[in-house]
This record gives sequence, structure tokens and C-alpha cells, in this order.
Amino acid sequence: MGRPSADTPIGTTHTLADVERAAAAVLPPEVRDFVAGGSGAETTLAANRTALDRVCVVPRALRDVSGCTTESTLLGRPVAMPVAVAPVAYQRMVCPEGETAAARAAKAAGVPFTASTLSSVPIEEITGVGGSVWFQLYWLRDTVRTLDLVHRAEDAGCAAVMLTVDVPWMGRRLRDVRNGFALPQGVRAANFAAADSTAHRRRGGASAVATHTAEAFSPAVTWDSVAALRAHTRLPLVLKGVLDARDARRAAESGVDAVVVSNHGGRQLDGAVPGIDALPEVAAAVAGGCEVLMDGGIRGGTDVLRALALGADGVLVGRPVVWGLATAGETGARRVLELLGDELRDALGLSGCSDVAAARELRTVRVPAGDGAAAAP
Amino acid sequence: MGRPSADTPIGTTHTLADVERAAAAVLPPEVRDFVAGGSGAETTLAANRTALDRVCVVPRALRDVSGCTTESTLLGRPVAMPVAVAPVAYQRMVCPEGETAAARAAKAAGVPFTASTLSSVPIEEITGVGGSVWFQLYWLRDTVRTLDLVHRAEDAGCAAVMLTVDVPWMGRRLRDVRNGFALPQGVRAANFAAADSTAHRRRGGASAVATHTAEAFSPAVTWDSVAALRAHTRLPLVLKGVLDARDARRAAESGVDAVVVSNHGGRQLDGAVPGIDALPEVAAAVAGGCEVLMDGGIRGGTDVLRALALGADGVLVGRPVVWGLATAGETGARRVLELLGDELRDALGLSGCSDVAAARELRTVRVPAGDGAAAAP
Amino acid sequence: MGRPSADTPIGTTHTLADVERAAAAVLPPEVRDFVAGGSGAETTLAANRTALDRVCVVPRALRDVSGCTTESTLLGRPVAMPVAVAPVAYQRMVCPEGETAAARAAKAAGVPFTASTLSSVPIEEITGVGGSVWFQLYWLRDTVRTLDLVHRAEDAGCAAVMLTVDVPWMGRRLRDVRNGFALPQGVRAANFAAADSTAHRRRGGASAVATHTAEAFSPAVTWDSVAALRAHTRLPLVLKGVLDARDARRAAESGVDAVVVSNHGGRQLDGAVPGIDALPEVAAAVAGGCEVLMDGGIRGGTDVLRALALGADGVLVGRPVVWGLATAGETGARRVLELLGDELRDALGLSGCSDVAAARELRTVRVPAGDGAAAAP
Amino acid sequence: MGRPSADTPIGTTHTLADVERAAAAVLPPEVRDFVAGGSGAETTLAANRTALDRVCVVPRALRDVSGCTTESTLLGRPVAMPVAVAPVAYQRMVCPEGETAAARAAKAAGVPFTASTLSSVPIEEITGVGGSVWFQLYWLRDTVRTLDLVHRAEDAGCAAVMLTVDVPWMGRRLRDVRNGFALPQGVRAANFAAADSTAHRRRGGASAVATHTAEAFSPAVTWDSVAALRAHTRLPLVLKGVLDARDARRAAESGVDAVVVSNHGGRQLDGAVPGIDALPEVAAAVAGGCEVLMDGGIRGGTDVLRALALGADGVLVGRPVVWGLATAGETGARRVLELLGDELRDALGLSGCSDVAAARELRTVRVPAGDGAAAAP
Repeated sequence: MGRPSADTPIGTTHTLADVERAAAAVLPPEVRDFVAGGSGAETTLAANRTALDRVCVVPRALRDVSGCTTESTLLGRPVAMPVAVAPVAYQRMVCPEGETAAARAAKAAGVPFTASTLSSVPIEEITGVGGSVWFQLYWLRDTVRTLDLVHRAEDAGCAAVMLTVDVPWMGRRLRDVRNGFALPQGVRAANFAAADSTAHRRRGGASAVATHTAEAFSPAVTWDSVAALRAHTRLPLVLKGVLDARDARRAAESGVDAVVVSNHGGRQLDGAVPGIDALPEVAAAVAGGCEVLMDGGIRGGTDVLRALALGADGVLVGRPVVWGLATAGETGARRVLELLGDELRDALGLSGCSDVAAARELRTVRVPAGDGAAAAP
Repeated sequence: MGRPSADTPIGTTHTLADVERAAAAVLPPEVRDFVAGGSGAETTLAANRTALDRVCVVPRALRDVSGCTTESTLLGRPVAMPVAVAPVAYQRMVCPEGETAAARAAKAAGVPFTASTLSSVPIEEITGVGGSVWFQLYWLRDTVRTLDLVHRAEDAGCAAVMLTVDVPWMGRRLRDVRNGFALPQGVRAANFAAADSTAHRRRGGASAVATHTAEAFSPAVTWDSVAALRAHTRLPLVLKGVLDARDARRAAESGVDAVVVSNHGGRQLDGAVPGIDALPEVAAAVAGGCEVLMDGGIRGGTDVLRALALGADGVLVGRPVVWGLATAGETGARRVLELLGDELRDALGLSGCSDVAAARELRTVRVPAGDGAAAAP
Repeated sequence: MGRPSADTPIGTTHTLADVERAAAAVLPPEVRDFVAGGSGAETTLAANRTALDRVCVVPRALRDVSGCTTESTLLGRPVAMPVAVAPVAYQRMVCPEGETAAARAAKAAGVPFTASTLSSVPIEEITGVGGSVWFQLYWLRDTVRTLDLVHRAEDAGCAAVMLTVDVPWMGRRLRDVRNGFALPQGVRAANFAAADSTAHRRRGGASAVATHTAEAFSPAVTWDSVAALRAHTRLPLVLKGVLDARDARRAAESGVDAVVVSNHGGRQLDGAVPGIDALPEVAAAVAGGCEVLMDGGIRGGTDVLRALALGADGVLVGRPVVWGLATAGETGARRVLELLGDELRDALGLSGCSDVAAARELRTVRVPAGDGAAAAP
Repeated sequence: MGRPSADTPIGTTHTLADVERAAAAVLPPEVRDFVAGGSGAETTLAANRTALDRVCVVPRALRDVSGCTTESTLLGRPVAMPVAVAPVAYQRMVCPEGETAAARAAKAAGVPFTASTLSSVPIEEITGVGGSVWFQLYWLRDTVRTLDLVHRAEDAGCAAVMLTVDVPWMGRRLRDVRNGFALPQGVRAANFAAADSTAHRRRGGASAVATHTAEAFSPAVTWDSVAALRAHTRLPLVLKGVLDARDARRAAESGVDAVVVSNHGGRQLDGAVPGIDALPEVAAAVAGGCEVLMDGGIRGGTDVLRALALGADGVLVGRPVVWGLATAGETGARRVLELLGDELRDALGLSGCSDVAAARELRTVRVPAGDGAAAAP
């Protein structure tokens, strides 16, 4: 697949924000809201961006960056850049091919794709694309089914299991509540039996997706669950949604391979600390005992650089890939990852880093306010 | 009383801010101003919100929250959530049943209702509703009448006395001054004799309520008053309006059962510190010697969580209950408390807390600016 | 003189900001700009307000404020409140009676009036009003004339000499430059001989007042000048425009009676520190060795309280008195001082202070941003 | 050349911001964008200004400033003020005479002019103007040509070599990318052979200037390059683009005569620390071992004062000189430098400094937010 034609909407995008605008122009409003929204007053959704903009990097000078590369490893395996596609449910809502298209884009970009438990394409079809696929696990009320899902992911060839630990139930996403949001017909959680779920039952003043989640997910996931999972699979194990350094340390001590410092993109606890603000303490606490990923608000190469400089091994990026899918399917998702890779290489080189390891040695300064958004050209 | 119909204005509210908008649509402008306004330039009124939005909570992961409950105790008695309805004067201004309706809503919600000295329904009628009623006391210029009021509250069955300590006189509430605000006919301080008061005498460029207050209240309430009150009643004693840690410590040493860290909702000293900013030092100073409540700007479950994480045992909520009353009487007030309870349970669970005690162990991070308001959906 | 009628513009003012708006409605634009403007980009002009709004006061509870008084002393003499009218040049520009009217208002309010070297009414006429008049001194290029002015002020009955130490020349006040501002005919520096001065010579792209100042004032005022002045007069000596703590300490050691922590209302060095931010260090440095006054942005009683809590003995207020003069002459200036006194008494009482001394023991907290202006009713 | 007539656009400018507006009115939009733009989201471009506005200076009082002078030295040679014109490429884009006119203005103002490697007038013509000309060096992929350029600059009479160390390639300047920006015909890198370069090849969705830069510049400039350059020329050597204190210390130890603390005007790494924020640590690290210059956002005399107070020996100013050129050629550039000199002398005097050395002893205070821009008259 070559570079998209400049005649297409995706072909004229030069930043992830451009892709966001392009997607907003084509998505039905309630789907756009489902993707964009956060919980509550969306304080945390906004804070994720503000917190990133406040991080200033101190570049190094006079280092040879002619061989500058974004290549790195995640969970011990080579990646083209220290980025993985974050798990996002129901991607067929924004593009007919859904996760298949996104996984192809990730493969082309050389980065892992994380398939959600709630993917709208069965996990086997996603891994069928090739490339590195991680399986995101929501712990279901039925433990047997939960562990069966893990087996199924293993059998399908997934390279890691990422347990989400911040969703005992879905946060109050008011846009969905006000829209009375429900899944469109034809889009469903494809890893589950085909029976119509509550996620399709439209009801005013409620989110059908939240209702379904409350029915299906366990609010009793604990460190015992992690131990059971650790015993149950040899795949690398990632915990997503760790913000307190004490939890991160315990994760490292529990044989977990990576934590994702995340507030779920501002979609769970409104008022939660931004991942980028929690990151330095988490990185210090695990002290190399496991990898540290981060997500929430990553919108460009500079954001990846900021996370690396504050101690991350890599980041996850979710919404932007969905914007790409919505705008131009696989081509669009690939455009997003290409832009991000180009921007990261640019940011590395301009900060005097020839690789990701060098970026982790950069110093940072925090300023009281980030001013970028208003001035963005 | 069941859930309000979705056809009604209150039935379509999903946040306390929704209820505020609904109330603004039905209240006469000068009553809306009386409820909403702060003193002076309203610096403190605005700061109360900003200060809350700056508090980021660090959630815990992997704790069983299936039994998550908002139940707690206040002043040693069980409550459905660590929230009490704050004292608000003259509630019949916004709803014919006034305090009676609000007290019923509080009872239904399982939280204490604080009846103001200036309630527009006699204290006996309020306690007649049942439920836990606290009596808010303004120290009058006539001490005998003051202590008589306390006796009367005791006899009526009140469960606590809350002495307001930050009103030697009313702050300069400029909205009322500009409106020449006076009590509407038919609304009066029902705990006092029926003679027409200055609070009804409309005069341009002055607040009749402030004039009345200046006549009636003592500006000489001291620690001796507290001692007298302590000796006078066996009811739990609460001091509302404590911001300096030295005063809080003295309160604990004086046999007071709780302090409310409060700037009176931005209605007394403009330029006063927000309660949430004063809270940690107060909590540290009393060191468990008495309970610590907080108020000012609480507009959702996340705000309650923030207060708990910073050391509060509970919070008071005033204006939102009045908005509920204004919009739909008892149903509206109950809706407000239900929303708050639902949001608090949500916030507890999403921060990995199965109860209020766990929330008090959460860590917090302060960011330079809170960004929620602008982004609220 | 009684309370102004509510039918007049001044009679409906309830805050100093109200008076500002009233004055803006009647002043010619270029005079309004002369009064309102700061130097350069007006960074410091704006910062003076922002810095005050960031200061939160921690009120005390349960102290008898029934006898609350704003009375205090300044330079060892009783004042009705710890406020003096700041020196402002050429007051006949805004009101025919000029400084005479303002001095009468100050006398009525029980506060000192500072007459500028550049007053548009001779100093003898100002002191003829009675009341406490301080003489503000600009050190002229001609030292003999400078000291003669001091003698003249003494003879006229002035109670203090206030040497301005931050005007080697006037700051670049761009509003005046763009307006090609010059003194209107009939308004002149009345303490000088009547010959027409350059201050009246209108020239595009320049401020005639600045030109005149550059000709008349000495840019070589030093500590030797202070010593000469100290030796020359027995009047209390005040230095206005001290921001560095080292200079304040030296002032105290030089027999100076007070320093005014001031950036000249944002009219001299754009980029200078706000007085309120410099105040604590200055107060600590002089350690009681002389009085510490502060000015810049004082717009209400809460601002006075903030300054007292941060270590000031009192404040100066300039522009608001001019707004009052412009709106309603002596009545207007008096209204401003009455409002300020009422607000200060209110602020003292609401913070649990029965007098000014108590206010100086209040604690303060600084928040990242002051939010008052936008919300002001 | 005398003062510009007040009838001309440049004659009515009183601040550098005025000149910016005047230039914006005459420049073609894409040239204006080329000059104004930053990289990425322009976070750093905006942060440069915000960071300066947050620096408050604490003026000194009572010092004789009658002989106040902006004269100083840069690289050991006298300058009329501690300012040099920053290197800016292709100045003939904004004015037919290009660098020649700007160099004449610098000579008239008594400050060094830095000629860019990419100047649109040959270096020999620029030095032909007289005055102090520094040669800015981009290290080319061809080292021989690079060192030849240095020889040529020496032969032409340049007074210093300034090696830019923050451009392994050009940052992603999105305005240029969106404009498909290319050099206008007739404007070229005049120090190179006349063959048409890629910098003229207009292509949608790309910056031809960036493409050309990527082809021509070496991304492998290292400390070895600095050593080679140091060995190759006896001219004073300046490194531009140093932000990390460790790099600054190494520069001083490598025989470098000055570093420029710079993020390239927000045009290279978006998210880089503002120079003014990096300056104090750099100044402390070099500890006098070399001179420390600073650039990025300098828009007036107060900004120069801020930099001096935070440890700089001087500053560079780029875009404002280009605005002057665009508005009125040499006259315009000279106006900019005159304004800056006048403002600096004003700022020095008003802060009690009779010279640049005194300014470096001033104290500073940082406030959370700079408020100047909105209020600028």
C-alpha cells in the first residue's frame, strides 16, 4: 500500500489533529461522541492534554543523529517504534472492516495491535492478518469464560495478554447517556455468542454499552486474578490502568511484564490523575522490574518523546487510529501510524537522540500552562 | 417515590449542573441570584470550583469493589453516603413546601438534613418528616433566645447542633444589593414570631436580608459561646466555617464533634481560601480529635471523593439541593441526592475503593489549572 | 456632606469597579487613557491585579468583632483606616476643583491625602482644606528648587514627605504616546511658575507629559539624596517605589519612616514585580524598622486585607479616587473612600479581626490563578 | 539616515508588535507564515512568549542612572547594546535588498549582524556594508565545503562563526507544509553555486525549503565537528541551540566563546524548553567559562532585561528585524533596533541599572501566568 493520494481527505492530513477533523466530518454524531467522549465533566479528558503540553523537553546538542531510528522493543520483541495500538471496542462502528483494517495498518507500521475483548471482529480473524497482536482482557463475571478467552487468544497466536484493571464497570460517559447510545445493528462483540446483547437495546437517558458492560464484567478483579492469569498463560502479561506507584511496584513483583500508566483516556474516573503526571513516580517505583507504558492524550511524536523522557518504555495510542479508520479505513489508520512514526523520528533527532534509549535520558521541565492548542496552525 | 419521569425537566437531568440549568429556567432572576451569588467580586465563589478541579486523585487498581458502598457514619450515626444537606435559609422561596420537601428528600436519600435558623418552615415541621435533622444555629444578639432555639431543636428531635461561626454579619452579596433584594411576601423566618421583619422591606441599593441579619445576629460569638453551647446541650456539636488549622485544633479540644471547613459557599469573605485548599491542614491539625466535614463547590461524586482523599469525613451540599427543589420540589431534591450518591459510588469503585474509609487513603496530585468546566458535555 | 443620592451615577455605585465604569463614561478618551494606562505591554499593570487575586486569606473563627474598627495609625498618627490617597498628578484634568476636592474627601474619610509635586492646585490650597496632607516629592534636576519645595510643603503644614524613587524618567506609556497626549489648557503644575511648559505642547507620537518629566526630573536620585532630605526636614520621610528587600532594609537603616512597596501602578518598568508579591520579603527585611505601605491594584477592602496579612501597615490607593473625582467631584472621591472603608471593615470582621493589628496575623495561601474578574457581578 | 517620517507605516510604530502588524499587512501570506511559523503544534513558539512574560524583575531604587547606557561587549568587542541580529535565511524574500539592508541597519545601530549560511546575498556583499558581521554556519553534508564556507567568511571579514547545533534537519513547520511553500524565483542561497535548488520546487503538502535543507545539511554534527572548527579558525566560535546545561559546560570546556540558549524560535523541536527557562541553569553551569546569549521571543527592552537578569550576556533578535525589513527595508530594520535600544535603556534605568552589568545582578520572581499580551495597548 503506497502513500495515500493527495486528492483524498486522508491524503491532505499532516497531523493527527487533521485526521481527527476529517473523521469528525464523516462519523455520525453519536459515534463521534462515543469515540471522543470522556466521563463526567470530562475534566480528566482535558487534563490529559494539558498535562502533556506542560512537559518541556531539554534537547541535547551535537550528537550524531544520522542513523536516528525509532526502532525499539516492547515486551521483548522488536517494534518499528515504541507505540502499540490501544484496545478500542467495536471498531466496525467506524469502518466496515473494523479491527481487521486497523490490524493490517499496525502490521504495516511494525507496531503491535491490541485487540479488545469487545472487538467487533473475532480475535482469530484479527490475528489472521499477521503481525503482532496483543489480546486485551476484560475479566468477565464468569471466570471460566474469562480464562477460555485467554486460551482462545493464545491459540489464535496473540503475543501478549493485557488485562484492563480500571473497569469494574464503565465510567459515566455523559455523551452516550444523553444520546441514549446503543450499538448499531450489525456491530457486536464478535468474540461472544451471537445472541443479541443489551448493548443494542436503545433506551433514552442511558448508554446501552454501559449497561451491557455492567452485566458482563466483574467488579471483583484483584491481585488474585492476576496470579491466576499469570499461572494460566505463558504469554507476556500487561496490566492496563495502573496509576498508583504502590500498585505498579506490586505488579512488577507479581511477574507482570508491563504496566500501562493510564486513566483509560479520561473515560473512567473523572478527576483521575493524568498518566503523564503519574508516570515518573511509577517508573521510579518499578525500577526496571517491568516495562512501563503510558497512554492518554498521545497526539504526536512530541508526546511520545515526553513520555519516554519521563520514564516510559512506550505508549499506546487509541482514538487517533480510530479517526484514521473512520476517514479512510486501513489507509487512514496507516496514515496515522506513519505520521506518528515520522513525527517521533523527527522529535528524537531534534532532541539529539539517535534512538529511544537516548530519549529516556532527556531532562524535562514543567511549565504552569501548556499553550499549544490555541496556537496550532 | 419512584424515578422521575423522563418527560419532566428533572427526569432528563444527568448531572447536578443539569439541575442547575433547569432551576435557572424557572426561578425568578433575583431569587436565582440570591441562591447563586457570592460576596464581593465572587473571587472565592469561583475559586471554590477551580480549587476542586485542580485536585487529581490517584486511583488504586485490582481491588474487589463488587460490594462498593457509599455508606458511612456522620457524627457517629449511619448515613447512606458521607453527605449532609447544608443549611440554606428561606427554602420556601424556591418551592412552596420549602424545607419540608427538602427534608423528605434527604430522608429518602438516607442523609442528614440541616435546618437553618432562618428556615421558612418551623423546625418542628421539618423534624416531623422523620429522618436525621441537624439544627443550624446563628447566635442571636439575644443569648436567651439563642439557647431557647437550641432547646426547641432538641425537643423537636434534632440530632445535632451546627453553629455557624463565620457570619458576624452577612457578606456583601452584590447581586442582592443591586437587585434591592427582599424576601417575597409569604416567606419568612418561621422559627421566629410572625411580625413582619426588615427582611421584607425592599429598598433600592441594599439587601433587606442582609439588613435583617445585621439586626438579629451577634457579631460577638466566641469560644465562650461554644463552651456555653457545649454545656447547654448533649447533642453533637458542629462548628461550621472553620478554615484556620489553629481554630480547628481548638475546636477538637473544646469538645466539638465536628468542624465544617467552609467559606460559606463564597458568600462571606471574598478572598477567603477555598475549603478544599484548607482541608488537608485542618485534617492534620485535628488528627482525629473530631470529625472534619467540608463544603463549597461540591457538584458531583468526584468532588466528594476529592474531599475524602484530602482528609474529610464527609461534605455538605447546599445549592444543588435548592436547584432540585426549584425544579421539581421533593422529587427534584431527591434527584440531586440520588445523582450524587450514584456518582459517589461510581467514583469510589473506579478509584478502587469499596468504601469511604478506603477513599481516605487515596493519594492526590494538584495540577496548576482545572480544565473541566469548559469541556463539560 | 451626606450620602449621594441614588438618582446620581455615583449614588448607584457599590464597588470601586462601578466607579471606574462611571468615570469611563464621562472622561475624554485620552484622559481616561492617561489615568488607566500602564507602561509598555501593560504586563505589570495586569499582573498587579492577578497577583492580588491569587492571595487567599485564611479567616479566623469565633472572635468577637462587635467592636471591629478600621482605625489604625500611619506614620504614627491616627487614621480612620490604613489607607492613604496616593499621589496623582494634574487632578484638575478630571474635575475642576482637582486636588482640593480630593483632599476634602480624604479629610472627610479620615485618611491622609498625598499631594503630588505635579499637583494642579498649589500645595498651600490643598493643605488649606485641613486634614492630613503628605507631600510627594519628585527630585528635580535643580536641587535647590527641590529642597525649596520641601520647605514650602512644611510651611504649608504637610505632615510627611514622600520621595518617589522609581521615576528617573517616565515609563513608556504607550497610550499617551499613541494619543500624542498633552495637558489640556488650564491644567498645569501649580507648584511651579506659570510659564507654559512642554507638558502642553502636543506632538504626534509622543507624550508631552513624559517630555516635560524628562526635562524636569533628576535621574540621579540616590541614597545621598535621601540623606540630604533626611537632614533637611523633620517631617516623617517616606520612600515610594521600593521593591527589593535590600533597598528596604537600607531605607530602614537610613532613618526613613516608611517605604511604599510599589511599581508605580504598572506605569514605570513594565515587567516589574507586583508590589503584593514583593511585600512579604520587604516586610521581613525591615523587621519593624520602618512602616511598610504597598500600592498597585488595590480595588477593594479584600485587597487591603490581603496586603495587611502579607505584612503591610497600610496601602495607597490612587486611580479609584480619580475615578470618583471624575464621576462626581468631592462626592465621588468620598464615595470611593467610604466604599473602601466599609469593605475593609467588612473584610476585617469576616476574617475574625476586630482591628488592623489582628489582620496582620492572618495566614494566606497562594493559588495558581485568580478567578475573580470574570465572575464579578 | 534620520528618523522615519511619521507619515509612513514604519514612522507610526512604537513597539516591535506594531512593526509585526505593519509587516503582516504587506507580506504575502505564505511568506508571512514562513517567517512567523513554528514547528508542530507551535507549543514552543507560544511558550517562548509565555515564559518571558512570567519573569518579573525586582528593580533597585536610588541609584544614579543619569549616565545609563546600553553599551556592552559581545565576544569581547564593544556593542551599542547587548543584542545581535539573529541569523535568518533568505531575507530577500521580504525586501529586495535583503541582508544588505539589514546589515546596514545593524551597523547603524551598533550591533552585530549574523549572516546566515542561507543568506540570499553573498557573504562578501554583506560584510561589504561594514560593521560587525558574524557568520552563521550550517554544517553541510560535504565537510570540505563547510570549512570552505568558514574560510570564505573569514576572508570576507566576518568577526565570528556561529555554528547552529539544533538543525540536523528542519523541524516540521506545518504552515509551510500546508502552503506547499517554496522559495520565490529570484531568491536563492547566494553563498552557493547558482544552480536551481530543490528549495524552489513547489510541491503540494511539502516545504521545499525543508526538502532542500534535508539534502544539504549534515545530521551528524558532533563535538568532533566543534573541535575541527575550533582548530580551523581563529575567529570567536559561538554554538547556537544549546539548552542542556551539560552541553553548555562542555562547550565552555571546548574553547567555545559563547553559547546561544535557543530553541530556534520554536521552529525545531516542538515541545522544547523555552530558552528563558533553560537560561539560569546554563549560566550557572558555564560559570563564566564562555559568554551566554539567549534568543526566542525577545520582543522588547523588558525581554532583554529579563534575559540579563537571568544570567545572559546578551540576546539575539530575528523575526522583528525581518518585520522591519518587510515594512520599510533598511529604515524599518533600523527602526526595530532603535526601538529595542530605546526600550532597553528605559528598562535599565527604570530598574536602577546604569549599565548592563548592573542588570545581571537584579533579582527575579516567576509568576504562574504572564498577562501582558491580552492587555497590550
